[in-house]
Parts: sequence; structure tokens; C-alpha cells
Amino acid sequence: MNIIRYPNPDEWDALLKRPTLNSEDLNETVREILNRVRTEGDKAVRDCEEQFDKVRLDNLQVTPEEFDEAEKLTSIELKAAILLALNNIKTFHSAQRFETKKVTTLPGVTCWQKAVAIEKVGLYIPGGMAPLFSTVLMLATPAQIAGCKEIILCTPPDREGKIHPAILYAAKVAGVTRVFKIGGVQAIGAMAYGTTTVPKVYKIFGPGNQYVTAAKQQVSLRDVAIDMPAGPSEVAVLADETANPTFVAADLLSQAEHGRDSQSLLITTSESLLEQTAQEVERQLQALPRKEIASCSLDHSKLILVKNTEEALQMVNRYAPEHLIIETRDYAELAEKVVNAGSVFLGSYSPESAGDYASGTNHTLPTNGYARAYSGVSLDSFIRKITFQEVTQEGIRTIGPAIEIMAANEYLDAHKNAITVRLTDKK
Amino acid sequence: MNIIRYPNPDEWDALLKRPTLNSEDLNETVREILNRVRTEGDKAVRDCEEQFDKVRLDNLQVTPEEFDEAEKLTSIELKAAILLALNNIKTFHSAQRFETKKVTTLPGVTCWQKAVAIEKVGLYIPGGMAPLFSTVLMLATPAQIAGCKEIILCTPPDREGKIHPAILYAAKVAGVTRVFKIGGVQAIGAMAYGTTTVPKVYKIFGPGNQYVTAAKQQVSLRDVAIDMPAGPSEVAVLADETANPTFVAADLLSQAEHGRDSQSLLITTSESLLEQTAQEVERQLQALPRKEIASCSLDHSKLILVKNTEEALQMVNRYAPEHLIIETRDYAELAEKVVNAGSVFLGSYSPESAGDYASGTNHTLPTNGYARAYSGVSLDSFIRKITFQEVTQEGIRTIGPAIEIMAANEYLDAHKNAITVRLTDKK
Repeated sequence: MNIIRYPNPDEWDALLKRPTLNSEDLNETVREILNRVRTEGDKAVRDCEEQFDKVRLDNLQVTPEEFDEAEKLTSIELKAAILLALNNIKTFHSAQRFETKKVTTLPGVTCWQKAVAIEKVGLYIPGGMAPLFSTVLMLATPAQIAGCKEIILCTPPDREGKIHPAILYAAKVAGVTRVFKIGGVQAIGAMAYGTTTVPKVYKIFGPGNQYVTAAKQQVSLRDVAIDMPAGPSEVAVLADETANPTFVAADLLSQAEHGRDSQSLLITTSESLLEQTAQEVERQLQALPRKEIASCSLDHSKLILVKNTEEALQMVNRYAPEHLIIETRDYAELAEKVVNAGSVFLGSYSPESAGDYASGTNHTLPTNGYARAYSGVSLDSFIRKITFQEVTQEGIRTIGPAIEIMAANEYLDAHKNAITVRLTDKK
Repeated sequence: MNIIRYPNPDEWDALLKRPTLNSEDLNETVREILNRVRTEGDKAVRDCEEQFDKVRLDNLQVTPEEFDEAEKLTSIELKAAILLALNNIKTFHSAQRFETKKVTTLPGVTCWQKAVAIEKVGLYIPGGMAPLFSTVLMLATPAQIAGCKEIILCTPPDREGKIHPAILYAAKVAGVTRVFKIGGVQAIGAMAYGTTTVPKVYKIFGPGNQYVTAAKQQVSLRDVAIDMPAGPSEVAVLADETANPTFVAADLLSQAEHGRDSQSLLITTSESLLEQTAQEVERQLQALPRKEIASCSLDHSKLILVKNTEEALQMVNRYAPEHLIIETRDYAELAEKVVNAGSVFLGSYSPESAGDYASGTNHTLPTNGYARAYSGVSLDSFIRKITFQEVTQEGIRTIGPAIEIMAANEYLDAHKNAITVRLTDKK
């Protein structure tokens, strides 16, 4: 890890720079696969599965028997853990339900918003190193609470054509309606365009490698909405001398193990905490199975010493971390001043792992500084707020003349006329 | 207008097809201009203004004197109309404020969301046929209510380097902090990357021609968020025999005058209303200054006769119109069943013009079927909901074991360890 002491504010931007990703090269490959899926449907999907996941599938959809088998194969303790997490995620996301409030802006002019679920959503769960059943819970649970009618999930099969049992178990308990054994770009294409087997959805959610990310971007330009732009995962820990270096080190490492391009920052006011944390990171690292990945990620991670918590907070807001852990004496006070972050963890017993799995908050969060403009996934991500208005004859008499003047000044005479015919109506 | 009677459901998709836009051709031109703005900043912006808006500007930012002059040049009646609209927009959008609710998912585990304004937003207001001061109100008002610190606005100057007075007046009263005389792709580039004069923003809002639309898309891939994807404007009127054909015709025409690619649909259960409306459209059209544009748009507009309001509503939900006007006896009941629409206008005295200007609802809405997945602009568009969580020692003892099991099953040992160090801490 790189240690930086008391950097000058004009060095901050360089210091907080994230590794840039170049996806230009793979855009052409991705475009080609998407085109094949669009024109050839299921045939292209099956061919791609054979080519990339090395398995020839007759049936792309997971059967009820496979769900039953998955449930048997998942240990009782894991099932219990998943249900505990599911319950907390349900509690937190249910509390996000939007209640319609009718607003009378002027007598006879009533306006309101109504939350309506997106009818069809698609979730993507990558294969690779880890079976991300936790992400299944994070995406399917709010979709179900919102009331989405069709919640489909695509995830790549292994070479035997199987899906990890915990993914299927999580999908079942969280309310996924159908699971398809499709990975990568072909999964994104199938959900964006629809095939004979896979229904076209209106919004696609979920993480993925750079090919999946590029595919989501491409289909989002015209065909379907996506959850948010993607980037490497990151954490910033803001700590003072009251923090426990063992905890801080564990938190930095839990981010670092995600991937080689993950970034962990410690921003602290305490030289002693900084040094102890550096030692602790080194010590804990040795015991990790993913030591090699974490080491690589730590190479571009930083321990930064600053003058005071005020400055630390400014730096955090400049960086706009996906995850922010505040382990200081006055964390509640500092939390009030957070402007740019995805999810904030307060105090010594709120590690990122809590939100990643089971506290109830969502773990699909804006990375790469996108927290400046984007929220993480929440119930909002699965609904639209449709506006309604009801204007009475009295109402149109009140606001009509102003509308006529405005429309005339924008040279939109038909807009004006839609008011005039109502104001002059003899009824 | 095209009249279609009792179409078969399997013809609906073809019938409801929107004109497709091909923006591939101009992407290269747009990319080039964006690159120039990114690398050369203000110089590129000034050169582009000279090239495209035919004016050489020394000062890109509108001065206080220009604001004063604009106020004098705007008529008293237009100012009053703008203030009435502003007041209603404020009332409706203020009611959308999000209130934090702390949720205890389990004892010692507290989670909440907090709405925080996006710090810097950029609004684009096109030049062209109409001075869209109404759009200034629609975008700046919620930005100000949200608490955005920097609300900048770019709009192209005329050949004398001036901005329409009503745009400046609206910008001033709605809380825009700075206005720049920059149009087109160069405006989007300046706001996305920042120049010496123009601050970089985190989210860009507003309409524009196909070049502006393509530029917003390109910068949204990496640099900045945008309000929503754009497409031609559209209305669907759902009416029965109780509707007034004069009103319905005026509503269809007010959409048709927007542009040659606008689309107006009437979906009705009444043959007689259909015929009277067709005649009324013809009659009202003759008196319109924008007759030629409206005619062109009417060429691809449709009057559709269906069996009953149930079928009409199914067709509406399939189409997912930006604007939906329901003029039927039982409009309140039908409104409950609307699933896909941007903004809904209920009854005979709620024309689209009301929402376009002054009822209080926003007129920046999802076009092109995007209403299936996107909401219109609202207060939500200018905030992020940051999640917070505070877990106590008791809390981590409750949920910690489940997290350890889940993390271990995702092969994320450092995530597990961040819990273990806290559970085994002797303190």
C-alpha cells in the first residue's frame, strides 16, 4: 500500500484518480455477438454458450426439478443465513414504498405521482470465481416488493450445464420467476431483444465482467434501461485514533479481495492508526486464500494521513466512494456532512460486509465516482413514478390564461388553442 | 391521419411502431466536436459558436446587465404567467421531498436513506424555432428545491450574441446560477468535461436536436449522467363517446405542431367521435401558423377504433405514451389501470398544454416507449439517496454468523474475516 502524508489539496485529484479502463477494444466483439442474438435468437444464444461456456444446452431454462435439487444441495446453515439476509433486505426495501400524495397547486388543479412497477426486469449474475447468490437477493427482493410481474435471471452454467445450487435457492426464495442458463454478452442480448425462450425485459440489472458491462452499455443506448454504469469496486475508510486497526485492516482487505482493480483507501487523522493498520494489513493478508488478488489490489490502494476530520471529509466527498466506512469518535456528526458516497457504514461494528450481505441495505452501488450523480439500487430502481393531473373547468379558468400567454410566446399556437377551445366552450 | 378500425391484437405492434431514427451517421461528427472541446476547452467552444451559431463571442457567460435588460424586455403579462407557472411547479415539486425514515431490521441494526442533492447540474435549452423558457422552469425549479449548489444553463445565442429575454428571465426566477451562450454539441461537451469558463457538472438535463441527443449519449457512457434517452414527442388520447371532439382535435394538434416526427394517437371506442375528431383536426389545422409541420406529423398519426375501453387501455399500455389524455366517462377508474405512460391527463379540462406549462407537473418526460422503464424528471432526478447503516456490537453478534457463512460460501474470506475480528474482539 502507498502511504501519503499530508497531501496538498491541489494534489488530491491526482491522488484520488482511479485506474482507467479502456473498453474500446472489445466493443466490436460485443456488437457482433449482440447482433447475432438479435437476428438469430435462441440459436445464437446456444452457439455462444457452446463457444464461451463450453456446454451444449438443449433446454436454456432451469426446470422445477433443478430448483428442487438445488434446495437439497444447499446446506441447512447456508439456507438459514440466506433467509436471515432476505428478511432484512425485505424489511429495509419494503420501508421504501412510495405513498401517493395528491397536491392541489391551485383550486381545481390536482397533481400527483404514482409508483408503478416496471413490468419486466432482467437480472444478470456472473459466473467466475464466486457464486454471487447475495446479489440475487439484492436484485430480486426489491423487484418482487415493487411488484414486477416478470423477474428473469440469466447466469452462466458450468461445463455440465449446471447452476450453483445457492444461486438457484436464492432465486427461488427471493421471487425470481424464471432462470436461464445463459452468460455473458449473449445473456444481455437475449434479455434486451427477447428470443423465443427468453422474454424481452425493460430494464437489466447486475454486475459482470468488462464484456457484460460493454454489452449493457450498448443495449442501453436504444433498447432497454440498465441499473447504472459499472466500474471497479472501492472502499474509503475514514478513521481517527479511536479506530481499531485490526478492524480497519480487515475492512480494507475485504474490498481488496474483490478483484485486481479494486481500490481501498484509508483516510486518517492518526499517524499511529495508519502505521498499525499497515502492519495489520500485512499480517491478515498472509492468511487469505485470495492473497494474490488482494496484494495486486493493494498495490494501487492508499493510506492517507490528513490534518483533521474536516479535511478527511472533504477528501471523501471529492473521491465519492462506493462504500464509505466512518470509524471515528464523532461518526454521527461526520455522517451528516457526507455529500458523495454510495453507502455509508457508521462506527466500529458496521463493516462493509454487513451491507454486502445481511443488514438489509442494497449492495449494488455506484462505483468509479458515479456516486456524484447516481444512487445505488433501491426500490426506486424497479418502479416508475407516473404523474397524473386532473384539472377541473374551474381550474382551467384559473391557469388557462397564463398557459395561453406562455404558449403564444413559444410560438406554439396549437398548445394555446387547446386551452382556448376549453375556455370558450359554452357548456 | 390514418384511420384504423378494430385492429387485431396481433397487428398492434406494427400499428404502434414509432418512426425509427438513425443516429449512426452523425456520431462521428459529434465525437470529433466533443474531443475538440475536451482537449481545447474554451477555444474550441468559441470556434464552434462561430462555425455553427455564426457569432464570435468574447464573453461566454451572460452578465448581470444582460439579465436586467432581459427583465425589461419581457412583457409584464408574460412575467406574470411565468411566475404563476413557477409557483405551481414549486408547489408540486416541493411536495416530492424525501423524508428519511430509520429502519431497524434487527435489534442493533439500523439502516436508512438520505436524499442529498447532486452538487452540480447542467441544463441545456435548445435554440431553434421556439424560445423554450417553459423548459427552463421545468428543469431549474426542481434543481433549486433539491438544493443543487451549481445550476448552470447553456443555450445557443442568436447572431447578435443574444439570448431570448424570456429564457433569461425564467432562468433568473427559477434559480439558475450561471447562463452560458453555448449551443449544440459544444455545450454538452463543455458541461461534461468543464472548461476554464464552464464548470464540469455531474448530470446534464434537457432537450435538443439529434446532434445534442447523440452528444448526451456519448458523454453519458463515461463522464456524466443524463436525464434520460431522447426521442420524438408523442401523445395518446383515449376517448369515448362522451369526449368533446373539438377538445380532442386540439389536443392531437398541440402534439403534432411540436415537430415533423411527433406522433398523435387517438384510441377511441366511438365511431362518431372518431369521425367528428377527424373533421375537427382538418378544420383547426387550417388556422395554425405551424400548419405545415403539423400536417407532416399528422401523416404518421393514427385514429384507432377499438371494441371497448378495456382494449383501449391495453393498447395504451402496449404503446407506453409520453403523454396520455383520458377523456372518458370513467376516466378515474381507467387511470388506475395505466401501467406504461409518462404523464396522464384526466378528464375534459386537463389538456396536455396544462402540464406542458403551468399545472405544476414536469414536462420533461420519457418518449419513444421509454416510459416502460423510465420516469419523467422530478425532484428525484436531482438527488441521490445515499444509504447509511449503523450496526452496534449487539447487532453484529446477531447478524455476524449469517454473514460469515454467506461470505465463506462466496469464497470471500476477507469479507468473513471483517466479521470474525469483530465477533472475537475482547473489548
